[in-house]
Amino acid sequence: MERIAFIDLGSNSVRFVIYEISDTGSYRLLYQEKDSIRLSENMWGDHKLTQEAMNRALVSLQSYVHMAKAFEVDTIKAVATAAVRLANNGDEFINLVKQDTGLELECISGVEEARLGFLGVINTIGLKDFVIFDLGGASTEVTLVRNRQIEKSVSLPIGALTLTGTYQKGEEFTDKEYNKMVKAIKQAIEEHPWLKNVKKPLLGIGGTARNIAKMDQRKLSYPITKLHNYEIPYHRFTELLDEVKSKPLAQRKKINGLSSERADIIIAGMTIVYELFNYINCKTLVVGGSGLREGLFYDYYGQAYLGGNPIIPDILIHSAENVLLGMTRYELIHAKHVGKLADILYDQWQPLHKGDTALRRCLQVSSLLHDIGKRVNYYSHARHGCYMLVNSNLYGITHIEQAFSAFLVMNSHGLKPKEYKNFLYGQLLDDEQKAIGKKLSIILAIAEALDESHEQLITHLESRIGPEEVQLIVHYPASRDISIIKGAVERLEKAFKKEYKRQLQIEWSPQ
Amino acid sequence: MERIAFIDLGSNSVRFVIYEISDTGSYRLLYQEKDSIRLSENMWGDHKLTQEAMNRALVSLQSYVHMAKAFEVDTIKAVATAAVRLANNGDEFINLVKQDTGLELECISGVEEARLGFLGVINTIGLKDFVIFDLGGASTEVTLVRNRQIEKSVSLPIGALTLTGTYQKGEEFTDKEYNKMVKAIKQAIEEHPWLKNVKKPLLGIGGTARNIAKMDQRKLSYPITKLHNYEIPYHRFTELLDEVKSKPLAQRKKINGLSSERADIIIAGMTIVYELFNYINCKTLVVGGSGLREGLFYDYYGQAYLGGNPIIPDILIHSAENVLLGMTRYELIHAKHVGKLADILYDQWQPLHKGDTALRRCLQVSSLLHDIGKRVNYYSHARHGCYMLVNSNLYGITHIEQAFSAFLVMNSHGLKPKEYKNFLYGQLLDDEQKAIGKKLSIILAIAEALDESHEQLITHLESRIGPEEVQLIVHYPASRDISIIKGAVERLEKAFKKEYKRQLQIEWSPQ
Repeated sequence: MERIAFIDLGSNSVRFVIYEISDTGSYRLLYQEKDSIRLSENMWGDHKLTQEAMNRALVSLQSYVHMAKAFEVDTIKAVATAAVRLANNGDEFINLVKQDTGLELECISGVEEARLGFLGVINTIGLKDFVIFDLGGASTEVTLVRNRQIEKSVSLPIGALTLTGTYQKGEEFTDKEYNKMVKAIKQAIEEHPWLKNVKKPLLGIGGTARNIAKMDQRKLSYPITKLHNYEIPYHRFTELLDEVKSKPLAQRKKINGLSSERADIIIAGMTIVYELFNYINCKTLVVGGSGLREGLFYDYYGQAYLGGNPIIPDILIHSAENVLLGMTRYELIHAKHVGKLADILYDQWQPLHKGDTALRRCLQVSSLLHDIGKRVNYYSHARHGCYMLVNSNLYGITHIEQAFSAFLVMNSHGLKPKEYKNFLYGQLLDDEQKAIGKKLSIILAIAEALDESHEQLITHLESRIGPEEVQLIVHYPASRDISIIKGAVERLEKAFKKEYKRQLQIEWSPQ
Repeated sequence: MERIAFIDLGSNSVRFVIYEISDTGSYRLLYQEKDSIRLSENMWGDHKLTQEAMNRALVSLQSYVHMAKAFEVDTIKAVATAAVRLANNGDEFINLVKQDTGLELECISGVEEARLGFLGVINTIGLKDFVIFDLGGASTEVTLVRNRQIEKSVSLPIGALTLTGTYQKGEEFTDKEYNKMVKAIKQAIEEHPWLKNVKKPLLGIGGTARNIAKMDQRKLSYPITKLHNYEIPYHRFTELLDEVKSKPLAQRKKINGLSSERADIIIAGMTIVYELFNYINCKTLVVGGSGLREGLFYDYYGQAYLGGNPIIPDILIHSAENVLLGMTRYELIHAKHVGKLADILYDQWQPLHKGDTALRRCLQVSSLLHDIGKRVNYYSHARHGCYMLVNSNLYGITHIEQAFSAFLVMNSHGLKPKEYKNFLYGQLLDDEQKAIGKKLSIILAIAEALDESHEQLITHLESRIGPEEVQLIVHYPASRDISIIKGAVERLEKAFKKEYKRQLQIEWSPQ
């Protein structure tokens, strides 16, 4: 077991996280802290960090070092970004930090900053080709990602705070001021024609992006209270922008989901996003909850635990196994075996349910995590599992897929009409998804039943699909007693018939 | 670590559970199964278990033995109750079980059955004086409990199944038939005058009691889906009984919460409860979800881990610590320290919040479990903690107290008006409880802040309550840096002022 802390000293805020990595390689966030220290405040005149700002940073850093000691952290990695990088007295500050706290603060380049932000995103969001923007107070980093690799990145000198300060003289933008700002944003973006017409989704990190998501979720009474991986289509984004622009500050502050400290700079921030949308010519904004500090973690984890590769190949299965690793070895073996059986049945019965590979992955996640609710309570564990699946750190899966997987977990012992009716995330699924969800629930239930005795006796299945029936040939070791498995599977024949409109005929074939 | 299985072979159903006890002594239910084998079916003519019934039992028992082996269980304890006890061929059956499965089935006496049922209840329900009834198909066990000890118990020869079979000839009761049944029930109960006018709450276990609770919960759209420890006042019980009696079978089956297999015998079952209510002369029925099998577990656990005492002295703290023990030692130390500090503040500020000892216990539970949501996800862990607190196996606490404790956990970082508004279990709390809940949330937040650095530096506090202010003197070791704690506590001064209408003046006193 090791504990490692990361510090991300940004221009506006400083963030501190402690991760614990267990002996099995599973990890979890143990502690986190964030302070708004405004390190770049008043530094743009002579490009020097002010004494006050440096003092505020030192107070936070001292307290993080103290906390790291109290938590028995083995290693602290601290990085500083734009403010320190651009300040003429950056080195002086780094020495001061070393002297006062013992921390080796590393000032990273813009390229490295983009790489770390990218690592935070690529290991927690299941997109392959997209454009990351990290919208800050004084700059916006834009990174083009293709096939899960950085193709190009740039730091644009436009930010929500500086634009508002530069162009808005009174309490509100005049039309003239606003148009001037739009022109400046366009100019900054258009200097990078490699972004033009990329037609890939925008992936936004940072406070502005999160606030956009929050406003949209509140408007829709969205049932999942999670911003990470939330998608907003262009037309809803423009509706939000129109609303935000049409209201004076006092009214804006009352918009549900918009934080009141951000109400003054949200127009500039959202206008940058709007112009990025148009230039890139895309239809969707995806919001990321992770960023540089997660990137620092995955950079370290990749070096130490993944043979030097900080980009995890399959983030969904990786994150599901990470959630699982808190369970006992015994439970893990059963969960993986159920996943294997579910995969086999899914493929053999594909002509019947007509599911695609995305749904196959949902079934896989549900199979792995179907017993996870037992950590809350054995009784009603399917319902608790449903809650945990939606609220755990699962990456590489959309909210709809997460709701779909939760639906399968809820029905992992067979379909329960009552629970189906009360399914909290039902509004996220359309009728077609619900219909196929019912079919896949039966697959998960049968896969679970096939390892009911937790002995991994069944590994080989064959199916023959007829017009009125499905024949399932279950091979098993002749020397073993499988009466428990037989009983568990046969109890599901009726439910199978109901969802598949065919008789399930099981042939138990000793080998 | 050890695993132990229990089998409870009853007259109608057989139950199988596997518990795991960890090296720290914490335990959890690992697996459970229930089969309706109707062992007593057709035995009452010649008082012999039929061959068919014995065969059904053997099939289940074989599968349990297999399951226990697959789960690497160390010990199986199997007991049989009324059916085997009263059958003339009971010994023959026990030999058959031994021969077929290797199980040493122990036929227990009525007194032992009552004792085990009592152990299941007394270790999971926080009442001191009450009357347990275990309403079965052919009999109803009644036990008078005083000061958490059995005073007297009896097995009444009236059950939901036998009464319905004896008195109801057609599809429904005629008035005459119903009145005859009532007479018989009264007669059976009145033979035990020690039950007359006991005026203590009824505690019901078994299917009838659980169904009563379920119907009531559905009627009230009750927000907690848990039957254990659910309370029903007399007047609501009689309303349910009137409804059930007024509807013919087909209509009864449609009553929300009533299981359709029980719809035929529910009138007889509820009439027994009604007559117990009247004879005992009490106002509340409390429903218990646990029974004989939990009793078997606590009997074993008491012998092996509690120095021979199967009655746990403080079930609330015991169960909270059992939930906690899944956490790391490190988290446990912090949680207990926060609990200690919260207790001190609660007592010193009692004149301000005027809470009683029951609320003090809620605060204690919230303090112990305030970080438990981190098992789901670090982010939003207060919300997840709220979910886990309501859904975990916490005993000795009412549903309202559980909702109250969850409210405190949700606010463990200080009161968040938005979350307060969306608090799922809010309907269970009245305005007075909500008002004091807000005050205690601040205590929990301050207690947590006082151990923000997780170092247990603060152990001694003094308070002076003035008309306009509350002075809090925090003693701390002079050699240690407490700036993190100072920062965390001072951030709560505003919230304190809002709820207590007094200024919080903190004096940091080095020792």
